[in-house]
Amino acid sequence: MRRIVLASASPRRKELLEQCGVRPEIIASDINEYINHKNTPEETAMSLSFQKAIDVASRAGDGIVIGADTVVVLEDEILGKPLDDREAFSMLLKLSGKKHRVITGFSVIDLAGPTKIVEYESTDVYFRELNENEILDYIYTGEFFDKAGSYAIQGKGALLVEKIEGCYFNVMGLPVSKLNSSLKKFFNLNLL
Amino acid sequence: MRRIVLASASPRRKELLEQCGVRPEIIASDINEYINHKNTPEETAMSLSFQKAIDVASRAGDGIVIGADTVVVLEDEILGKPLDDREAFSMLLKLSGKKHRVITGFSVIDLAGPTKIVEYESTDVYFRELNENEILDYIYTGEFFDKAGSYAIQGKGALLVEKIEGCYFNVMGLPVSKLNSSLKKFFNLNLL
Repeated sequence: MRRIVLASASPRRKELLEQCGVRPEIIASDINEYINHKNTPEETAMSLSFQKAIDVASRAGDGIVIGADTVVVLEDEILGKPLDDREAFSMLLKLSGKKHRVITGFSVIDLAGPTKIVEYESTDVYFRELNENEILDYIYTGEFFDKAGSYAIQGKGALLVEKIEGCYFNVMGLPVSKLNSSLKKFFNLNLL
Repeated sequence: MRRIVLASASPRRKELLEQCGVRPEIIASDINEYINHKNTPEETAMSLSFQKAIDVASRAGDGIVIGADTVVVLEDEILGKPLDDREAFSMLLKLSGKKHRVITGFSVIDLAGPTKIVEYESTDVYFRELNENEILDYIYTGEFFDKAGSYAIQGKGALLVEKIEGCYFNVMGLPVSKLNSSLKKFFNLNLL
Protein backbone atom coordinates (compact mmCIF):
# COMPACT_ATOMS: atom_id res chain seq x y z
CA MET A 1 0.00 0.00 0.00
CA ARG A 2 1.10 3.56 -0.65
CA ARG A 3 2.40 5.77 2.12
CA ILE A 4 -0.46 7.52 3.92
CA VAL A 5 0.20 10.71 5.85
CA LEU A 6 -2.38 11.83 8.40
CA ALA A 7 -2.31 15.60 8.87
CA SER A 8 -3.71 15.41 12.37
CA ALA A 9 -2.33 14.88 15.85
CA SER A 10 -5.64 13.29 16.97
CA PRO A 11 -4.97 9.84 18.44
CA ARG A 12 -8.57 8.87 17.60
CA ARG A 13 -8.10 9.50 13.87
CA LYS A 14 -4.91 7.47 13.92
CA GLU A 15 -6.70 4.60 15.70
CA LEU A 16 -9.55 4.68 13.18
CA LEU A 17 -7.13 4.35 10.27
CA GLU A 18 -5.34 1.55 12.12
CA GLN A 19 -8.70 -0.18 12.60
CA CYS A 20 -8.88 -0.20 8.79
CA GLY A 21 -5.40 -1.66 8.41
CA VAL A 22 -3.57 1.58 7.59
CA ARG A 23 -0.44 2.55 9.49
CA PRO A 24 -0.44 6.28 8.85
CA GLU A 25 2.53 8.51 9.30
CA ILE A 26 1.56 11.48 11.45
CA ILE A 27 2.58 14.99 10.46
CA ALA A 28 0.51 17.47 12.45
CA SER A 29 -0.44 20.66 10.70
CA ASP A 30 0.18 24.02 12.22
CA ILE A 31 -2.66 26.19 10.98
CA ASN A 32 -4.78 28.77 12.70
CA GLU A 33 -8.22 27.22 13.02
CA TYR A 34 -10.00 30.40 12.06
CA ILE A 35 -13.77 30.08 11.67
CA ASN A 36 -15.44 32.36 9.13
CA HIS A 37 -18.98 32.68 10.37
CA LYS A 38 -20.25 33.54 6.89
CA ASN A 39 -19.63 29.89 5.97
CA THR A 40 -21.91 26.99 6.83
CA PRO A 41 -20.55 24.45 9.33
CA GLU A 42 -20.03 21.99 6.46
CA GLU A 43 -17.99 24.57 4.53
CA THR A 44 -16.01 25.38 7.66
CA ALA A 45 -15.14 21.75 8.37
CA MET A 46 -14.17 21.09 4.74
CA SER A 47 -12.14 24.27 4.49
CA LEU A 48 -10.22 23.60 7.71
CA SER A 49 -9.58 19.99 6.65
CA PHE A 50 -8.13 21.24 3.38
CA GLN A 51 -5.98 23.87 5.09
CA LYS A 52 -4.54 21.14 7.32
CA ALA A 53 -3.93 18.74 4.43
CA ILE A 54 -2.34 21.33 2.14
CA ASP A 55 -0.16 22.64 4.96
CA VAL A 56 1.25 19.16 5.52
CA ALA A 57 1.36 18.32 1.79
CA SER A 58 3.93 21.07 1.28
CA ARG A 59 6.43 19.21 3.46
CA ALA A 60 5.31 15.56 3.25
CA GLY A 61 7.38 14.57 0.21
CA ASP A 62 5.28 11.78 -1.27
CA GLY A 63 2.24 9.60 -0.67
CA ILE A 64 -1.33 10.51 0.07
CA VAL A 65 -2.16 13.16 2.66
CA ILE A 66 -5.40 13.03 4.62
CA GLY A 67 -6.64 16.04 6.57
CA ALA A 68 -9.79 16.21 8.68
CA ASP A 69 -11.67 18.66 10.82
CA THR A 70 -14.64 17.92 13.05
CA VAL A 71 -17.19 20.47 14.23
CA VAL A 72 -20.13 20.11 16.60
CA VAL A 73 -23.20 22.07 15.56
CA LEU A 74 -26.28 22.85 17.64
CA GLU A 75 -28.98 24.50 15.56
CA ASP A 76 -26.63 26.67 13.51
CA GLU A 77 -24.06 27.40 16.15
CA ILE A 78 -20.64 25.75 16.07
CA LEU A 79 -19.63 24.60 19.54
CA GLY A 80 -15.87 24.69 19.83
CA LYS A 81 -13.54 23.36 22.50
CA PRO A 82 -14.47 24.69 25.95
CA LEU A 83 -12.04 27.07 27.63
CA ASP A 84 -12.85 25.80 31.13
CA ASP A 85 -15.29 23.67 33.12
CA ARG A 86 -17.85 26.49 33.26
CA GLU A 87 -18.04 26.73 29.50
CA ALA A 88 -18.18 22.93 29.24
CA PHE A 89 -21.10 22.93 31.70
CA SER A 90 -23.02 25.47 29.65
CA MET A 91 -22.38 23.57 26.39
CA LEU A 92 -23.53 20.25 27.85
CA LEU A 93 -26.63 21.95 29.29
CA LYS A 94 -27.41 23.25 25.80
CA LEU A 95 -26.95 19.77 24.28
CA SER A 96 -29.12 18.04 26.92
CA GLY A 97 -32.27 16.41 25.51
CA LYS A 98 -31.55 17.70 22.01
CA LYS A 99 -30.23 16.60 18.65
CA HIS A 100 -27.03 18.11 17.36
CA ARG A 101 -24.86 17.44 14.35
CA VAL A 102 -21.26 16.32 14.19
CA ILE A 103 -19.67 17.20 10.87
CA THR A 104 -16.26 16.01 9.77
CA GLY A 105 -14.76 17.58 6.67
CA PHE A 106 -11.96 15.60 5.10
CA SER A 107 -9.46 16.22 2.33
CA VAL A 108 -7.29 13.79 0.44
CA ILE A 109 -4.31 15.02 -1.54
CA ASP A 110 -2.26 12.78 -3.83
CA LEU A 111 1.32 14.05 -3.87
CA ALA A 112 2.07 11.99 -6.98
CA GLY A 113 -0.70 13.54 -9.09
CA PRO A 114 -3.14 16.38 -9.43
CA THR A 115 -6.04 14.80 -7.54
CA LYS A 116 -7.30 16.62 -4.47
CA ILE A 117 -10.72 15.86 -3.09
CA VAL A 118 -12.71 17.46 -0.30
CA GLU A 119 -15.83 15.98 1.24
CA TYR A 120 -17.75 15.82 4.49
CA GLU A 121 -19.94 13.49 6.47
CA SER A 122 -22.62 14.53 8.95
CA THR A 123 -24.06 12.49 11.82
CA ASP A 124 -27.01 13.37 14.05
CA VAL A 125 -26.35 12.79 17.75
CA TYR A 126 -29.20 12.76 20.28
CA PHE A 127 -28.33 13.49 23.90
CA ARG A 128 -30.42 12.13 26.73
CA GLU A 129 -32.09 14.63 29.09
CA LEU A 130 -29.33 15.38 31.57
CA ASN A 131 -29.86 16.97 34.95
CA GLU A 132 -27.28 19.34 36.41
CA ASN A 133 -25.81 16.65 38.66
CA GLU A 134 -25.20 14.34 35.74
CA ILE A 135 -23.47 17.14 33.86
CA LEU A 136 -21.31 17.89 36.90
CA ASP A 137 -20.47 14.18 37.22
CA TYR A 138 -19.31 14.22 33.62
CA ILE A 139 -17.36 17.48 34.00
CA TYR A 140 -15.66 15.89 37.00
CA THR A 141 -14.20 13.15 34.78
CA GLY A 142 -12.16 15.87 33.02
CA GLU A 143 -12.92 14.25 29.69
CA PHE A 144 -14.48 17.43 28.23
CA PHE A 145 -11.06 19.06 28.00
CA ASP A 146 -9.94 19.79 24.44
CA LYS A 147 -13.11 18.23 22.96
CA ALA A 148 -15.35 20.09 20.52
CA GLY A 149 -18.81 20.21 22.11
CA SER A 150 -17.27 19.27 25.49
CA TYR A 151 -17.77 15.50 25.24
CA ALA A 152 -16.05 12.39 23.86
CA ILE A 153 -18.39 9.71 22.54
CA GLN A 154 -15.56 7.16 22.65
CA GLY A 155 -15.22 7.74 26.41
CA LYS A 156 -17.69 8.21 29.26
CA GLY A 157 -19.48 10.61 26.94
CA ALA A 158 -21.09 7.42 25.57
CA LEU A 159 -23.35 7.57 28.62
CA LEU A 160 -24.73 10.98 27.59
CA VAL A 161 -25.83 9.80 24.16
CA GLU A 162 -29.21 8.20 23.56
CA LYS A 163 -28.69 7.38 19.89
CA ILE A 164 -27.04 8.52 16.70
CA GLU A 165 -28.18 8.56 13.09
CA GLY A 166 -25.33 8.11 10.62
CA CYS A 167 -21.70 7.14 10.87
CA TYR A 168 -20.30 6.59 14.38
CA PHE A 169 -16.69 6.91 13.25
CA ASN A 170 -17.53 10.34 11.88
CA VAL A 171 -18.44 11.41 15.43
CA MET A 172 -15.09 10.04 16.61
CA GLY A 173 -13.37 12.21 14.00
CA LEU A 174 -13.01 10.33 10.70
CA PRO A 175 -15.81 8.81 8.56
CA VAL A 176 -13.79 5.80 7.47
CA SER A 177 -16.48 4.20 5.29
CA LYS A 178 -17.00 7.37 3.22
CA LEU A 179 -13.25 8.04 3.18
CA ASN A 180 -12.66 4.54 1.79
CA SER A 181 -15.29 5.12 -0.91
CA SER A 182 -13.39 8.27 -1.94
CA LEU A 183 -10.04 6.49 -1.85
CA LYS A 184 -11.43 3.78 -4.12
CA LYS A 185 -13.16 6.14 -6.51
CA PHE A 186 -10.48 8.78 -6.92
CA PHE A 187 -7.23 7.11 -5.88
CA ASN A 188 -7.75 3.46 -6.83
CA LEU A 189 -6.96 2.51 -3.26
CA ASN A 190 -9.04 0.10 -1.21
CA LEU A 191 -8.55 -0.30 2.53
CA LEU A 192 -10.44 -3.60 2.57
CA MET B 1 -18.25 1.09 43.57
CA ARG B 2 -19.79 -2.36 44.01
CA ARG B 3 -18.27 -5.42 42.45
CA ILE B 4 -19.49 -5.93 38.89
CA VAL B 5 -19.35 -9.36 37.30
CA LEU B 6 -19.63 -9.61 33.53
CA ALA B 7 -21.08 -12.95 32.47
CA SER B 8 -19.41 -12.83 29.07
CA ALA B 9 -16.04 -13.73 27.62
CA SER B 10 -16.40 -11.03 24.93
CA PRO B 11 -13.41 -8.69 25.04
CA ARG B 12 -15.57 -5.96 23.41
CA ARG B 13 -18.09 -5.97 26.25
CA LYS B 14 -15.28 -5.77 28.80
CA GLU B 15 -13.73 -2.83 26.91
CA LEU B 16 -17.07 -1.04 26.78
CA LEU B 17 -17.51 -1.31 30.54
CA GLU B 18 -13.93 -0.13 31.00
CA GLN B 19 -14.68 2.85 28.75
CA CYS B 20 -17.33 3.72 31.35
CA GLY B 21 -14.92 3.38 34.25
CA VAL B 22 -15.98 -0.10 35.42
CA ARG B 23 -13.40 -2.82 35.95
CA PRO B 24 -15.58 -5.87 35.64
CA GLU B 25 -14.65 -9.27 36.86
CA ILE B 26 -15.17 -11.81 34.07
CA ILE B 27 -16.94 -15.09 34.74
CA ALA B 28 -17.94 -16.62 31.43
CA SER B 29 -21.19 -18.54 31.38
CA ASP B 30 -21.42 -22.02 30.03
CA ILE B 31 -24.89 -22.27 28.56
CA ASN B 32 -26.18 -23.83 25.37
CA GLU B 33 -27.15 -20.92 23.16
CA TYR B 34 -30.33 -22.59 22.01
CA ILE B 35 -32.59 -20.44 19.83
CA ASN B 36 -36.33 -21.08 20.05
CA HIS B 37 -37.65 -19.90 16.70
CA LYS B 38 -41.10 -19.33 18.15
CA ASN B 39 -39.65 -16.32 19.97
CA THR B 40 -38.99 -12.93 18.43
CA PRO B 41 -35.32 -11.91 18.09
CA GLU B 42 -35.78 -9.47 20.99
CA GLU B 43 -37.14 -12.25 23.19
CA THR B 44 -34.31 -14.53 22.13
CA ALA B 45 -31.60 -11.97 22.96
CA MET B 46 -33.17 -11.14 26.32
CA SER B 47 -33.71 -14.78 27.20
CA LEU B 48 -30.14 -15.78 26.33
CA SER B 49 -28.77 -12.78 28.27
CA PHE B 50 -30.74 -13.88 31.31
CA GLN B 51 -29.63 -17.49 31.00
CA LYS B 52 -26.01 -16.30 30.93
CA ALA B 53 -26.47 -13.96 33.90
CA ILE B 54 -28.34 -16.45 36.06
CA ASP B 55 -25.83 -19.19 35.25
CA VAL B 56 -22.99 -17.00 36.50
CA ALA B 57 -25.02 -15.59 39.42
CA SER B 58 -25.23 -19.06 40.94
CA ARG B 59 -21.47 -19.11 41.45
CA ALA B 60 -20.49 -15.42 41.59
CA GLY B 61 -20.87 -14.93 45.33
CA ASP B 62 -21.73 -11.24 45.59
CA GLY B 63 -22.01 -8.05 43.54
CA ILE B 64 -23.99 -7.28 40.43
CA VAL B 65 -23.99 -9.68 37.49
CA ILE B 66 -24.44 -8.42 33.94
CA GLY B 67 -25.28 -10.80 31.10
CA ALA B 68 -25.72 -9.87 27.45
CA ASP B 69 -26.51 -11.49 24.15
CA THR B 70 -26.37 -9.90 20.72
CA VAL B 71 -28.23 -11.10 17.65
CA VAL B 72 -28.15 -9.86 14.06
CA VAL B 73 -31.53 -9.87 12.34
CA LEU B 74 -32.26 -9.48 8.63
CA GLU B 75 -35.96 -9.18 7.99
CA ASP B 76 -37.05 -11.75 10.58
CA GLU B 77 -34.16 -14.13 10.26
CA ILE B 78 -31.49 -14.33 12.95
CA LEU B 79 -28.04 -14.53 11.38
CA GLY B 80 -25.75 -16.46 13.69
CA LYS B 81 -22.00 -16.97 13.61
CA PRO B 82 -20.84 -18.39 10.28
CA LEU B 83 -19.48 -21.92 10.21
CA ASP B 84 -16.98 -21.17 7.45
CA ASP B 85 -16.03 -18.58 4.82
CA ARG B 86 -18.72 -19.78 2.42
CA GLU B 87 -21.46 -19.14 4.92
CA ALA B 88 -19.91 -15.77 5.78
CA PHE B 89 -19.91 -14.88 2.09
CA SER B 90 -23.58 -15.72 1.72
CA MET B 91 -24.51 -13.74 4.86
CA LEU B 92 -22.61 -10.65 3.73
CA LEU B 93 -24.21 -10.91 0.29
CA LYS B 94 -27.62 -10.94 1.98
CA LEU B 95 -26.71 -7.89 4.09
CA SER B 96 -25.34 -5.90 1.11
CA GLY B 97 -27.31 -2.73 0.34
CA LYS B 98 -29.85 -3.46 3.06
CA LYS B 99 -30.85 -2.47 6.55
CA HIS B 100 -30.60 -5.02 9.31
CA ARG B 101 -31.08 -4.87 13.06
CA VAL B 102 -28.61 -5.60 15.81
CA ILE B 103 -30.34 -6.43 19.06
CA THR B 104 -28.57 -6.82 22.38
CA GLY B 105 -30.55 -8.24 25.27
CA PHE B 106 -29.07 -7.57 28.68
CA SER B 107 -29.82 -8.74 32.19
CA VAL B 108 -28.70 -7.32 35.50
CA ILE B 109 -28.91 -9.39 38.67
CA ASP B 110 -28.22 -7.98 42.12
CA LEU B 111 -26.82 -10.75 44.29
CA ALA B 112 -27.49 -8.72 47.45
CA GLY B 113 -31.20 -8.31 46.80
CA PRO B 114 -34.19 -9.49 44.81
CA THR B 115 -33.81 -7.15 41.83
CA LYS B 116 -33.34 -8.74 38.43
CA ILE B 117 -33.99 -6.75 35.29
CA VAL B 118 -34.00 -7.72 31.65
CA GLU B 119 -34.03 -5.26 28.75
CA TYR B 120 -32.86 -4.88 25.19
CA GLU B 121 -31.67 -2.24 22.78
CA SER B 122 -32.03 -2.36 19.00
CA THR B 123 -29.95 -0.51 16.40
CA ASP B 124 -30.56 -0.30 12.66
CA VAL B 125 -27.43 -0.87 10.58
CA TYR B 126 -27.34 0.00 6.87
CA PHE B 127 -24.77 -1.78 4.73
CA ARG B 128 -23.42 -0.19 1.57
CA GLU B 129 -23.97 -2.01 -1.74
CA LEU B 130 -21.08 -4.47 -1.81
CA ASN B 131 -19.86 -6.27 -4.89
CA GLU B 132 -18.54 -9.81 -4.68
CA ASN B 133 -14.92 -8.67 -4.75
CA GLU B 134 -15.44 -6.40 -1.78
CA ILE B 135 -17.05 -9.24 0.13
CA LEU B 136 -14.14 -11.53 -0.73
CA ASP B 137 -11.68 -8.83 0.37
CA TYR B 138 -13.47 -8.69 3.69
CA ILE B 139 -13.66 -12.47 4.06
CA TYR B 140 -9.92 -12.52 3.39
CA THR B 141 -9.28 -10.43 6.52
CA GLY B 142 -10.61 -13.37 8.58
CA GLU B 143 -12.50 -10.95 10.77
CA PHE B 144 -15.87 -12.64 10.12
CA PHE B 145 -14.85 -15.61 12.24
CA ASP B 146 -16.95 -16.06 15.40
CA LYS B 147 -19.01 -12.91 14.64
CA ALA B 148 -22.80 -12.93 14.49
CA GLY B 149 -23.76 -11.70 11.01
CA SER B 150 -20.17 -12.32 9.82
CA TYR B 151 -18.82 -8.80 10.45
CA ALA B 152 -17.29 -6.69 13.22
CA ILE B 153 -18.23 -3.00 13.14
CA GLN B 154 -15.34 -2.20 15.48
CA GLY B 155 -12.90 -3.63 12.90
CA LYS B 156 -12.61 -3.43 9.13
CA GLY B 157 -16.33 -4.15 9.09
CA ALA B 158 -16.64 -0.38 9.63
CA LEU B 159 -15.95 -0.06 5.89
CA LEU B 160 -19.05 -2.10 5.02
CA VAL B 161 -21.42 0.14 6.97
CA GLU B 162 -22.97 3.25 5.45
CA LYS B 163 -24.75 4.43 8.58
CA ILE B 164 -26.49 3.32 11.74
CA GLU B 165 -29.58 4.56 13.54
CA GLY B 166 -29.40 4.07 17.29
CA CYS B 167 -26.72 3.14 19.76
CA TYR B 168 -23.30 2.23 18.31
CA PHE B 169 -22.16 0.47 21.48
CA ASN B 170 -25.19 -1.80 21.19
CA VAL B 171 -23.84 -2.99 17.82
CA MET B 172 -20.49 -3.65 19.50
CA GLY B 173 -22.29 -5.80 22.07
CA LEU B 174 -23.41 -3.70 25.05
CA PRO B 175 -25.70 -0.64 25.01
CA VAL B 176 -23.85 1.22 27.76
CA SER B 177 -26.09 4.29 27.83
CA LYS B 178 -29.28 2.26 28.32
CA LEU B 179 -27.49 -0.09 30.72
CA ASN B 180 -26.43 2.89 32.83
CA SER B 181 -30.01 4.19 32.88
CA SER B 182 -31.12 0.81 34.23
CA LEU B 183 -28.31 0.70 36.79
CA LYS B 184 -29.32 4.15 38.04
CA LYS B 185 -33.03 3.44 38.10
CA PHE B 186 -33.05 -0.02 39.63
CA PHE B 187 -29.71 -0.35 41.42
CA ASN B 188 -28.91 3.21 42.50
CA LEU B 189 -25.59 2.92 40.66
CA ASN B 190 -24.26 5.58 38.31
CA LEU B 191 -21.27 4.93 36.06
CA LEU B 192 -20.73 8.65 35.43
